[in-house]
Amino acid sequence: MTGPPYKPLDAQVIPRFAGIRTYMRAPHVTALVGVDAAIYGIPFDTATSYRTGARFGPEAIRSASALIRPYHPVHDVNVVEALSIVDYGDLPVSPGDTERTYAQVEEGLAPLVAADVFPIALGGDHSITYPIMRAIADKHRAFTILHIDAHGDLYDEFEGDRFSHACPFARIMEERLAARLVQVGIRTRTAHQRAQAERFGVETIDMRAWDAGARPRIVGPVYVTIDLDGLDPSCAPGVSHPEPGGLVTRDVVSLIHAIEGTVVGGDVVELNPARDPLSLTAFVAAKFVKELASRMLSPRS
Amino acid sequence: MTGPPYKPLDAQVIPRFAGIRTYMRAPHVTALVGVDAAIYGIPFDTATSYRTGARFGPEAIRSASALIRPYHPVHDVNVVEALSIVDYGDLPVSPGDTERTYAQVEEGLAPLVAADVFPIALGGDHSITYPIMRAIADKHRAFTILHIDAHGDLYDEFEGDRFSHACPFARIMEERLAARLVQVGIRTRTAHQRAQAERFGVETIDMRAWDAGARPRIVGPVYVTIDLDGLDPSCAPGVSHPEPGGLVTRDVVSLIHAIEGTVVGGDVVELNPARDPLSLTAFVAAKFVKELASRMLSPRS
Amino acid sequence: MTGPPYKPLDAQVIPRFAGIRTYMRAPHVTALVGVDAAIYGIPFDTATSYRTGARFGPEAIRSASALIRPYHPVHDVNVVEALSIVDYGDLPVSPGDTERTYAQVEEGLAPLVAADVFPIALGGDHSITYPIMRAIADKHRAFTILHIDAHGDLYDEFEGDRFSHACPFARIMEERLAARLVQVGIRTRTAHQRAQAERFGVETIDMRAWDAGARPRIVGPVYVTIDLDGLDPSCAPGVSHPEPGGLVTRDVVSLIHAIEGTVVGGDVVELNPARDPLSLTAFVAAKFVKELASRMLSPRS
Amino acid sequence: MTGPPYKPLDAQVIPRFAGIRTYMRAPHVTALVGVDAAIYGIPFDTATSYRTGARFGPEAIRSASALIRPYHPVHDVNVVEALSIVDYGDLPVSPGDTERTYAQVEEGLAPLVAADVFPIALGGDHSITYPIMRAIADKHRAFTILHIDAHGDLYDEFEGDRFSHACPFARIMEERLAARLVQVGIRTRTAHQRAQAERFGVETIDMRAWDAGARPRIVGPVYVTIDLDGLDPSCAPGVSHPEPGGLVTRDVVSLIHAIEGTVVGGDVVELNPARDPLSLTAFVAAKFVKELASRMLSPRS
Amino acid sequence: MTGPPYKPLDAQVIPRFAGIRTYMRAPHVTALVGVDAAIYGIPFDTATSYRTGARFGPEAIRSASALIRPYHPVHDVNVVEALSIVDYGDLPVSPGDTERTYAQVEEGLAPLVAADVFPIALGGDHSITYPIMRAIADKHRAFTILHIDAHGDLYDEFEGDRFSHACPFARIMEERLAARLVQVGIRTRTAHQRAQAERFGVETIDMRAWDAGARPRIVGPVYVTIDLDGLDPSCAPGVSHPEPGGLVTRDVVSLIHAIEGTVVGGDVVELNPARDPLSLTAFVAAKFVKELASRMLSPRS
Amino acid sequence: MTGPPYKPLDAQVIPRFAGIRTYMRAPHVTALVGVDAAIYGIPFDTATSYRTGARFGPEAIRSASALIRPYHPVHDVNVVEALSIVDYGDLPVSPGDTERTYAQVEEGLAPLVAADVFPIALGGDHSITYPIMRAIADKHRAFTILHIDAHGDLYDEFEGDRFSHACPFARIMEERLAARLVQVGIRTRTAHQRAQAERFGVETIDMRAWDAGARPRIVGPVYVTIDLDGLDPSCAPGVSHPEPGGLVTRDVVSLIHAIEGTVVGGDVVELNPARDPLSLTAFVAAKFVKELASRMLSPRS
Repeated sequence: MTGPPYKPLDAQVIPRFAGIRTYMRAPHVTALVGVDAAIYGIPFDTATSYRTGARFGPEAIRSASALIRPYHPVHDVNVVEALSIVDYGDLPVSPGDTERTYAQVEEGLAPLVAADVFPIALGGDHSITYPIMRAIADKHRAFTILHIDAHGDLYDEFEGDRFSHACPFARIMEERLAARLVQVGIRTRTAHQRAQAERFGVETIDMRAWDAGARPRIVGPVYVTIDLDGLDPSCAPGVSHPEPGGLVTRDVVSLIHAIEGTVVGGDVVELNPARDPLSLTAFVAAKFVKELASRMLSPRS
Repeated sequence: MTGPPYKPLDAQVIPRFAGIRTYMRAPHVTALVGVDAAIYGIPFDTATSYRTGARFGPEAIRSASALIRPYHPVHDVNVVEALSIVDYGDLPVSPGDTERTYAQVEEGLAPLVAADVFPIALGGDHSITYPIMRAIADKHRAFTILHIDAHGDLYDEFEGDRFSHACPFARIMEERLAARLVQVGIRTRTAHQRAQAERFGVETIDMRAWDAGARPRIVGPVYVTIDLDGLDPSCAPGVSHPEPGGLVTRDVVSLIHAIEGTVVGGDVVELNPARDPLSLTAFVAAKFVKELASRMLSPRS
Repeated sequence: MTGPPYKPLDAQVIPRFAGIRTYMRAPHVTALVGVDAAIYGIPFDTATSYRTGARFGPEAIRSASALIRPYHPVHDVNVVEALSIVDYGDLPVSPGDTERTYAQVEEGLAPLVAADVFPIALGGDHSITYPIMRAIADKHRAFTILHIDAHGDLYDEFEGDRFSHACPFARIMEERLAARLVQVGIRTRTAHQRAQAERFGVETIDMRAWDAGARPRIVGPVYVTIDLDGLDPSCAPGVSHPEPGGLVTRDVVSLIHAIEGTVVGGDVVELNPARDPLSLTAFVAAKFVKELASRMLSPRS
Repeated sequence: MTGPPYKPLDAQVIPRFAGIRTYMRAPHVTALVGVDAAIYGIPFDTATSYRTGARFGPEAIRSASALIRPYHPVHDVNVVEALSIVDYGDLPVSPGDTERTYAQVEEGLAPLVAADVFPIALGGDHSITYPIMRAIADKHRAFTILHIDAHGDLYDEFEGDRFSHACPFARIMEERLAARLVQVGIRTRTAHQRAQAERFGVETIDMRAWDAGARPRIVGPVYVTIDLDGLDPSCAPGVSHPEPGGLVTRDVVSLIHAIEGTVVGGDVVELNPARDPLSLTAFVAAKFVKELASRMLSPRS
Repeated sequence: MTGPPYKPLDAQVIPRFAGIRTYMRAPHVTALVGVDAAIYGIPFDTATSYRTGARFGPEAIRSASALIRPYHPVHDVNVVEALSIVDYGDLPVSPGDTERTYAQVEEGLAPLVAADVFPIALGGDHSITYPIMRAIADKHRAFTILHIDAHGDLYDEFEGDRFSHACPFARIMEERLAARLVQVGIRTRTAHQRAQAERFGVETIDMRAWDAGARPRIVGPVYVTIDLDGLDPSCAPGVSHPEPGGLVTRDVVSLIHAIEGTVVGGDVVELNPARDPLSLTAFVAAKFVKELASRMLSPRS
Repeated sequence: MTGPPYKPLDAQVIPRFAGIRTYMRAPHVTALVGVDAAIYGIPFDTATSYRTGARFGPEAIRSASALIRPYHPVHDVNVVEALSIVDYGDLPVSPGDTERTYAQVEEGLAPLVAADVFPIALGGDHSITYPIMRAIADKHRAFTILHIDAHGDLYDEFEGDRFSHACPFARIMEERLAARLVQVGIRTRTAHQRAQAERFGVETIDMRAWDAGARPRIVGPVYVTIDLDGLDPSCAPGVSHPEPGGLVTRDVVSLIHAIEGTVVGGDVVELNPARDPLSLTAFVAAKFVKELASRMLSPRS
């Protein structure tokens, strides 16, 4: 067996620390024939309210991913042998112009949706999940979103901006782009956000509930969106808006393992490399991307 | 309703990253009429035995606090709408002269005690809790101290110094400034410190007991003193004397939530900004200050 | 003699490392009676093309300024004894909206211009110099701008944006807000920028000319705008767009000393604290601010 | 009682932050008469596959150990009063030549084995455990190895190298240098490593099993080898190959406490100081060394 | 005019901070038709004596190069419009095996030499210059090497190793791979190295001579090899073996400008990203690469 | 020839990165027979006014010194072959008690003075030079002090403290411990300090004079005291009180080379390792120590 058409650099020839930094050193291609999964970046952070820097997130995840091992011990599969994975590069974005960027993301994703490629986005701030949902919703309208985050991101508007990174899930639920939204890790809800959650029927497992043992049941098809600040800052310091008292890394891995049925795509957002001097958060992000890609292979239902 | 007489800068006009760095961008005032709670600094670290640097702690907590959100999801209250909070600035201190500084702290706190203002101190090393107790004890003599720390700080003297940051609770208990002392997170007790704890009737929940499920019952009135090294260094790296194997952030938050009855004041000490390059520890400290201020509003008894 | 109406905290009472972080620990006031010089911040970085972060510049300069000594050995004057200096706080800005921020800066500066206060701005990215010039030009129309920078910032537009931080001096010269523009430290000119310089009669001393001994003669009234990336990154690492091969700190100090006649104001811009872990660049910036304030006292002409 | 022949510097005379950096400021001696335990370094990292830097591990552990307190609260003993502990310095090594270094380690350890001194090694990469086992196996052949690690290190060869730091336990088990091998914290097993574990009868408690409550029963004589990447990167960031989702510090301490019977030696490996800017990982390593030395005093069986 | 066949990403569409990190975001191609200049990496650091880490040098230079502007103000040329520049990726190397790596470098370079492409290497430690010289010497035998470095690298052997990074120029001169060797910036010569320099007729301008005004006259064809530790650590902190008291960035730029005649290739070596937290040294390196490529266009003779 | 009785570890056997960290890996001995020069630490920083941390200076200089090469290219001598150099360890000090520490320094130095050993101190803050002068003055009363510093350290008292690190040279000159004091690099003189300089006949070459070409003529016997903040922060960032606009490393080296006649001892002070993350300043300090030791061998007169 020769394996998939696209494979990473061979570590026996080019050591892992060498080579151009694509995700897991997969080929950087923009054609989609023979591709199972595409990792792509959206280096956009204009919708951020306090600290910026997530525009450098895709670069950092790619760099850290050189050390990711392709074998998955739980699913017992070598992801790069079983799947044809490519790095699709970064979508065009317009720093300073959120609405134009949204249109670019939708347009940029269209070929991947058309080609039935499993898409995993590297953020960028969390505002990018909204145009992603617009791009893929037609294909999977009845799906569930598993949303890991410290913040609900359900503001109707934030400091006057309806497209702030504090608002994407209000937009998504207003447009009924998903059938169900489950939020895990939340620990900063305001009264307004609670009202929004009720309005949209959002299921929330905040940290008090999590500590008390609450766990969600997630049944596919599922889109997984991971804001790295859902983790505790001890596990993911490199985010723009750290919020102490969150999930640990294994909690998130277990949530992904526990999904029943199909995963249809995902994103990992809000990495701020300027606050990640040892690249530990980037490495966690790179690992989550591999976990998501592995779920393409192993529906648990 | 117009809210309290003193309120922070309005984030709709001056973004959170802007403005002079007071605690939560509250007004810096030294008059006390119309004030409910005062945050004040004691930038003193002479009583430290190994590493110094806590003198820069108040500045760092103020800087990090710009990102603290005023709403409290558990108590369902906006602390800056419900309380008139000010930043009282730093008390005068005398670097190199512990005893003179103690007198300055007592003198500096007198107006707050007289005005019945809820005081929260930003340390400084842990020696400062002793003069604080002297300043407020007359008012609240029967209170309990909830003391979170890796170290018991009960030495009769340390390297020849009775006013070392390893000794304040020996002084406090000798002078009967509090009725009950409960220590949580301890993990470095010596035989001497154990004897001191027995002598003073100190209740100790060390990390082995904590891991085995022991939890204290704390009934107000309560003064809360948080040495940040009570946390594990993964959660609070920015301390002068990190001690691996401690509490996580949510443990401390839960301890504060679980207090029954009134909290009468508190302090957060031993932040060393030179060891906190990402300000993560400063942010944890700023959050604890908000938790303490919120307890002024929400006696649980 | 009692000195000026506004003076910093007394270091004999409150040590230099203590107290709320205003510039040199001067009083934070927004009234202007009795004020000679006002330090004010413009925490805006939306006009930046590559890295952001200058929004945190004013905070960092204030923090570093605690160590600035008030005596000036060359001018033989204690600036805080001779001048009534205040920290005016930050002007309102609108992150993400450059044009609205420009209007806010003009409006925010109007009271200082009206009160004849010597204004020194803490940036922020370099785009802010344009609205500052609009605010003060009527008062001083015939003045010279001494502009220290690695880049000419003379683009007619940059990546489609006429208000980019690469364009302010094109705008300033188009509107004839200054009589003469002298640029020192330049080392990245494009053909377009050279054409613009010729069009506007800009005098340029690039690094090759500087190394060959060229020095400008600057005669007041003068406005001084210092982009910290005019310095070599060895002296000022904490900027968003470092450009190796620049001026050293003493070169800039000497340029300020050599100005003949009156200085009417200034700004220090493009500090990016996320790239300044030891605050060395912030300290250089704080020192330049003092140098500019000192020139209010010592016209050399 | 005068205590052991070798004791550290007296902190009452030379403060803890002073003095030449040996382990816990113990005397640096290479004679072994009157010595109970010897701490020694093996600054070797040639067998590393991705990042190097562990050659500086022994220096960093010694530096951090200055703050380690000699009293052990669980065993109720002052280790430096009860034991004669010395710092034996570093063994000679040959950077770039793994096999020659192995011979040097065996030769270097022979005097300690002959003198019946309790040996604790400071790594270096994990390849060093193999020659240590060869040096001490004759004396203790029937012992158990407690192996804490993210990786099984059981590769038959790795990228063509049978002496890679990914292989030592394959070599150890092939040569029957230990009777039993128990691995805890594993989370990156490949199919090959699983087969090797089965071949050699290795007992593995991977992180899923650990989370589900599995705990090993370890009965002496025991050699303890701690790869710091067995810990989660939040607790031990300073390793060459961080692997998110691991043990916390207290888990490892509890494992050491729970050993029944005699501990015969140990090592702490894979510290990479270039990735440990605050020395937090070095401090954890220094603490583990003390825990191991304390077990010389307190067989639990 | 459409420009060269290979061009970088267009910054008007994909902002500079976006996209896969190749050198200056040039296309990563391994075919050589239509290529004028190829940037390639040699991520090898086994020949290093003290600190390792240069294996990550090529990645860091590529990352920093995203900010390099294509226009060259002295030569008045846009290098990416005038030249077809590609990123050739990294050559295969064998960590731990210097001699095998030398063979791989010679073999890997052969196609570039055959295709007459201008080669610029990204190191790696300085040992790599020796196999590069072997690969290109036949083509240009009579050339001069301009060698910028703190160290002469002329050891006959170093700690028993003839292929140490302290030896390449002894090997090069023994094999008469170059006609003339001029060393600038030297400041650590031993008596042995001085003897070697005399033996091989090496011209040395050490820092004392440089400070006294000595400057070399370099006439093409010239190969330029830049060890970044030739710079002072203030300008290039991110090297494995910093040596205080060196050249400043502009000195090196001026040396390159002053070359008379043709430059035939070059390398920039010894960047250690683990010691370059702000990427300032990487940016200097990226700039030198552009300076070298520009000299392909502008023979000064 | 067998060389001196005390020699460092042999780098052919124990690589430079290995071994206990004494200065240049010299033996740590406290006997003085057969010793030519002794490096000793004074880890004291209580006399510091703003930032502390110099107590960790000796450790950092020792650590960095492992990379110092023993050959001196200007004097053409291998210092460890020509001199018997030892690391004498740290003198006892009393943190928090300046006067007691002064007595300890005088007492601690007495054996070195009696044994005619060349002493080089590793600071510590600059206050330590005063008790050193008291210890050695009887032996060398007519000597000159070459004092490199940003600050004159001539305050009669500073913030009420006559033994502050801002005062040592007032004390030294009052007690006529030296015949001549020459200060180079000064750039923060107050009117008071200028008066003090006049009172004591201090010769000052401030940075303006230095830039204008002034150079001192220093004739032995000479004691050299180097406050690392005399250097520009670009060259020596790791100091407690950086002052932009100072000397570069080569200026100081040249000053040492230019001394005519005998050097009788020296110190290198004010290194603050908490502000020296890459150890660049520590390496500069270690180099200056070697330069001073080399001058024992090479009187230039």
